[in-house]
Amino acid sequence: MTKSLNIAILIFDGAEELDFQGPWEVLTMVNTVRAFKKIEGHDKVYLVSETGAKVTCANGMRVEADFSYATAPQADVILVPGGQGTRREVTNSATLKWIADQAAHCTWVTSVCTGSMVLAAAGPARGKRITTHWAAIGEVRNRGDAGEVVSGQRWVVDGNVVTSAGVSAGIDMAIWLVAQLHDDDMAKTVVRMMEYDPAPPFAFAKPDRT
Amino acid sequence: MTKSLNIAILIFDGAEELDFQGPWEVLTMVNTVRAFKKIEGHDKVYLVSETGAKVTCANGMRVEADFSYATAPQADVILVPGGQGTRREVTNSATLKWIADQAAHCTWVTSVCTGSMVLAAAGPARGKRITTHWAAIGEVRNRGDAGEVVSGQRWVVDGNVVTSAGVSAGIDMAIWLVAQLHDDDMAKTVVRMMEYDPAPPFAFAKPDRT
Repeated sequence: MTKSLNIAILIFDGAEELDFQGPWEVLTMVNTVRAFKKIEGHDKVYLVSETGAKVTCANGMRVEADFSYATAPQADVILVPGGQGTRREVTNSATLKWIADQAAHCTWVTSVCTGSMVLAAAGPARGKRITTHWAAIGEVRNRGDAGEVVSGQRWVVDGNVVTSAGVSAGIDMAIWLVAQLHDDDMAKTVVRMMEYDPAPPFAFAKPDRT
Repeated sequence: MTKSLNIAILIFDGAEELDFQGPWEVLTMVNTVRAFKKIEGHDKVYLVSETGAKVTCANGMRVEADFSYATAPQADVILVPGGQGTRREVTNSATLKWIADQAAHCTWVTSVCTGSMVLAAAGPARGKRITTHWAAIGEVRNRGDAGEVVSGQRWVVDGNVVTSAGVSAGIDMAIWLVAQLHDDDMAKTVVRMMEYDPAPPFAFAKPDRT
């Protein structure tokens, strides 16, 4: 069976770069694998901003959008990144409406980092078990939209809503997602192609003050 | 001592997205840490393309450049990403000259994935011990520019030339680099802020056929 999915990644001013660029690499690598292995199908992975204009990310990278909310096709999967810009998007009615409209017909609705607070405000993650960046757990709990805000998990699945922890966690979640969208073999080949054999020179250590 | 470094990241059509976007996240996170901890200094991390025009990356993301080869300031650190576009850049005399000119005054000269073949062709990595994406080890060896092309290391240091393995390995290398440019505490805090506690759902497994 040929699967050609529409995968929409939301971008906005102040989106944290790796939050969406990590999953972008994982999700587009599926097409590279297909080309190598002569597997049919081509997923359309595209960036959507409110007006279709380019955005300036949290750390200054300027990235072009492929579609606006008005022109984006119906997606099979949406991904909402985090970053300081989520504090504006969480009350941007155009963003909340676009997410809710798209999510109603999506197979998977996903977020990285503080993107989960936008997903919760927009509706799809309301009342759900979600996660976020370790430093934002309290903030997202205090908003009260989610059913439960889980700490210490790399990604959390509740129905078709999948939320990941901070920044780099989106990479792990996206690999898991590839296994759901395609199969384990595809996900393993993506891991191999992006040489995802992490060897951080310093271990992650959460400070006591959380 | 206030350290405010110039960190130039080369981009070109066909650059693999995560090759430069992973290190971008790591290297710009230093400024976020400084803001939180009220540490003075601000590193300028910027993207340089040949003409200063935006580029279309290997998987279709369109990213704006901050400088052209002509307008980019002298960098303290340069980073050359990989991707299919390296097969063109490795014979692009403007690119080779820009790298050589910059590298002559850099503290560190770095690459990710097949970026090392461009660094070797340009001069800085010629005769050096380098690495690259596992699938490109043979290709880079056959070019004959490097002294030795090492397999099975996440990143390789030879003098001030630091080359990393494929795609995601640039993240690990960049964290190591932050410890050299600043200190271990800064690198550890960057790891914490980007929640770099990788938990891939599938382990990396290199195929036998390499």
